[in-house]
Formats: sequence, structure tokens, C-alpha cells
Amino acid sequence: MTRTVYVNGDYLPEDEAKVSIFDRGFLMADAVYEVTSVLGGKLIDFPGHLARLQRSLDALDIRNPLSEDDWLAIHRALVEKNAIDEGMIYLQVSRGSPGDRDFSFPDPETCAPTVVLFTQSKPGLADSPQAKTGIRVISIEDIRWGRRDIKTVQLLYPSMGKMMAKKAGCDDAWLVEDGAVTEGTSNNAWIIKGGKIITRQLSNDILHGITRASVLRCAAEAQMEVEERPFTIAEAQEADEAFITSASAFVMPVVEVDGVAVGSGKPGPVAMRLREIYLEEKRKAAI
Amino acid sequence: MTRTVYVNGDYLPEDEAKVSIFDRGFLMADAVYEVTSVLGGKLIDFPGHLARLQRSLDALDIRNPLSEDDWLAIHRALVEKNAIDEGMIYLQVSRGSPGDRDFSFPDPETCAPTVVLFTQSKPGLADSPQAKTGIRVISIEDIRWGRRDIKTVQLLYPSMGKMMAKKAGCDDAWLVEDGAVTEGTSNNAWIIKGGKIITRQLSNDILHGITRASVLRCAAEAQMEVEERPFTIAEAQEADEAFITSASAFVMPVVEVDGVAVGSGKPGPVAMRLREIYLEEKRKAAI
Repeated sequence: MTRTVYVNGDYLPEDEAKVSIFDRGFLMADAVYEVTSVLGGKLIDFPGHLARLQRSLDALDIRNPLSEDDWLAIHRALVEKNAIDEGMIYLQVSRGSPGDRDFSFPDPETCAPTVVLFTQSKPGLADSPQAKTGIRVISIEDIRWGRRDIKTVQLLYPSMGKMMAKKAGCDDAWLVEDGAVTEGTSNNAWIIKGGKIITRQLSNDILHGITRASVLRCAAEAQMEVEERPFTIAEAQEADEAFITSASAFVMPVVEVDGVAVGSGKPGPVAMRLREIYLEEKRKAAI
Repeated sequence: MTRTVYVNGDYLPEDEAKVSIFDRGFLMADAVYEVTSVLGGKLIDFPGHLARLQRSLDALDIRNPLSEDDWLAIHRALVEKNAIDEGMIYLQVSRGSPGDRDFSFPDPETCAPTVVLFTQSKPGLADSPQAKTGIRVISIEDIRWGRRDIKTVQLLYPSMGKMMAKKAGCDDAWLVEDGAVTEGTSNNAWIIKGGKIITRQLSNDILHGITRASVLRCAAEAQMEVEERPFTIAEAQEADEAFITSASAFVMPVVEVDGVAVGSGKPGPVAMRLREIYLEEKRKAAI
């Protein structure tokens, strides 16, 4: 089936969906994005993603081209047009196409942001087999730019990291800076030790994960003890459990770090429980 | 006049030149570029740019989609079709459009790289008035990723830097890391002190400037003393002269750094002389 995607006001067949070669998203990675999961045809954590989109746009001085209602309407239209039951909706806003290349930002009065959205159907997303076996990660040096809190499309290194993991026969890479884990290539990293849930505190060093925030709330509601601080790869290898969080992986157990089994080498009970609680709560609140 | 641009084998009017929204250059900044100057309708330092393109592609495991002859033919065709006497030719190669979004690299057998080229006409490029007055720079923290030797389109921070300079009433920004200047936003940085020409040594920290290499050769031929090492902003402020090099600015004097006049506060004689020698040699060798 050909997807219907959204580009600057138009709903188009995916193979007709194009942007100018002068788009700053293409020439200068001057663009931000969000990915919202869909479960049962409804949007998960949608207000959180819209709020973070606004934060990213503000950080780059890009005008938000659409109202919250418009964003919601487009997301819902795409879910319907593509009959998405489980999957994701990707949205990207670039600074637009000024019709030429220049390092200086174009005049926002004459250069409107480019808006692109498309769906990815992923039947079985919530009931992922990977969540039952867990994933294996390697560690690599974190050489990304210093503003990882802005969700830009500068994803070349995370993409390279994913390939390094694949080459090593693993599923993902954890990024390490100054001896501590920052995050995964497209997710936040967590460990559990002695009943304590540990994840790095928010700063410019990591993405302010929407799922991370939700899971922190779930943990607090379940009276679990949480510590927000950096941790090392050695700590992760000696932890009782480890997991990642992201909008599309939800809570995903990590069973191996750099070839060393974490805990029993199987998905841990706390991670599994958090995944359940998260999915249950989010399904209820989905819109 | 509407420019004729090149996209994947076709010569098109610029407003019809588009790439898929799934192009990895647009979604993931998974693309590299080169800018070659044109003087008198001929290409400056062209073999250097092609060699660096190959280096960038190799570093990212992207196949070079064209032969050297093909690259040259396209460059020449664009110069002719757009009647470029002085200006630039921009070329970009992305990993292509796999038709969907995934952090993993697509199979190169089924996903061909995207090739885009366009011209920028700049009459008076060599005789730039700015070269006679010099430019003023500010310093900002270098927070770019760690592989600046690969000429990727991850240009958001350099672009932000240019805007910070503009806001401060200046022309450009020099990036500072661990107390030393790495380079300018889109150029290499140089100072001259006590007859010695100083510029940072090659590493992953800076772009391996084609113009930088040519100017080093010019300096050596002119028996000037060169030192390749990092320098600080304080050193630049106390230098006799300062300048930048890039494919389109050639050798451009810097007369002020963070509000402090460099030397006499006017373009220095060595920088001016290097600019002359560079342009003379390059015009002769242009193809």
C-alpha cells in the first residue's frame, strides 16, 4: 500500500512527497523532529511531544508553523488515511527553503518552515518479541554536538552508532562521554541496582525523553526509588537490570552491555513491570 | 534568471529541483558536500575538492556515485548553462532515499546516493571589497561533533555561529575548544606573529581545508615560516595579522577578534600578499 504523507499543507502519495534541494533541512540539518507512537489507533504522549517540539523550535528560533489543534488534526488524519493501528508518526519541521544556500538564517517573513509528516505502520509494536528477550548494547564514544537536548536531525553519528552495534552483532549502542553513559543512539539509558532506578539527569547532554519523563512518573507512583545521575558502563555491567526508554521502544530491557550479561542476562522484573505500567497508563491517556 | 541545477542525472530549472522527504540528507544529515570556486569560468582547486569528497564518502561508507570525469563534466556543464564567470559550484552527495526512515544504513545495492549540484553566481568574488577592509570575528564555544574532518551537512551550529556574529555586529565566529581556536564557521583560521604564520594542525578537530593546503604551499614557496599548532584568542588579539582561508573567501584578512583590533586593525601585508599569490597561482592552474 502506498502511504499518504503530509508536506506543507498537502496530503500526497509517498513517492510524490518531495522538498526543495534548497531546503535547509537538506543542506544544513537545520530542522527538528518528533516521533509519536500510535497504539489502538490513538496517539501516545502527544502533548509531551508537542511541548518538546515547541522547545526545540524555540531553541533554534524557528517559528512553530502550526497550532496545537492543527498538529493534532494532521496526526489524526494520517492515522486514518493510513489505517494505522500500531506504529509511529514522524514529524519534521525545517527552517524552510530560502531558494539558495547561505549560512545566515533566511528572513522568517519570506521563508516559511517546511513541515513533513509520515506514518510508519508497526503491527505488534506494543507486544514486541524483543521486549521478551531484551536487547544487547555496545558502548561507543559520544562525539555528538553539545546540544542533544534539541531534537535536531543531526543524526549521522547515532546512525553510525547503530551500524557499529550491528557489526558487533548487537542491537544498539550506548554513548559514553567523560567516562559516563549519556544515552542510547535514540533512547534514554537506565540501570537498576539494589532496588534503585538510576538514569542520567537532564542537561544539554541528553535528549529530554518524553517516555523518560513518563516512566519517572510511573516509578514514583509505584513508590520505586529513583536517582537521576550519570552512571558508567562498569556500573551497568554490575547492575541488577538495565533498560532503555523511547517513544517507540517504550521500556525495553537491556540484557547485555559490552559482552557482559546484566543481572541474570534476561529481562529484569522491574523493567518488565515498568513497561506494563507505562503501556497501561498511556493506552488509557491516548488521544 | 532561473538557474539550471543538477539532480541525479537531470539538469532542471531550480524550482523543480527536489529530493524525496525520505532522503537521508533531509532526515538524518547523512550527506557530504564540497564547494568549488569558479574564476574566469574555470574551476579552482578542483582535484583537491574531488579528493576530499572521496575522503568524506569513504569515512561514511557511501559509494562515490560518479567518476572523476563525470564530476568534472557536470561542473563544466553547470558553469556553461548558468554562464558563471565568478562564483561557486556546490555539490552534495547523500546516502540516498531508502523510501522510509531507519537509523540503519540502507542496502547500497538498492539505495543509490543522491547527487545534487547547483551554481552560485558571485561577480567580483576575487576582487571582493571585504578583502580590502578585512572582517571582524567573535569567538564562541566549539560544540560541534568530533569528526569535523568529514565535510558533512551537519552545519546547524556553524550557521548559528554566523547568526551570533551578525547579532554582535561582526562577520563571522571563531570556534574555541579547550582554550584554543579550532577554526571559523566555514573556514580555517590563521594568525601571523613575528614573521611566523600559524594555523592549527590537521586532525579530526578541523576541516582539512583545500585552500588551507594551497596557502601552506604558497607560503612555503615564498620562503615564509609556518607553524602548524593550536593558538588561543589572546594570541590572535596580540598577533601582527590574522586571516581566514576557504574555497570561496580565498585568503580573507581578519582585523578584529572579540572587539580587539589585530595589529594595525587593517588587513596585514602578509595576508594580502598570500591572497595575491594564491589567486594568481590558482587562476593559472584552473581547469
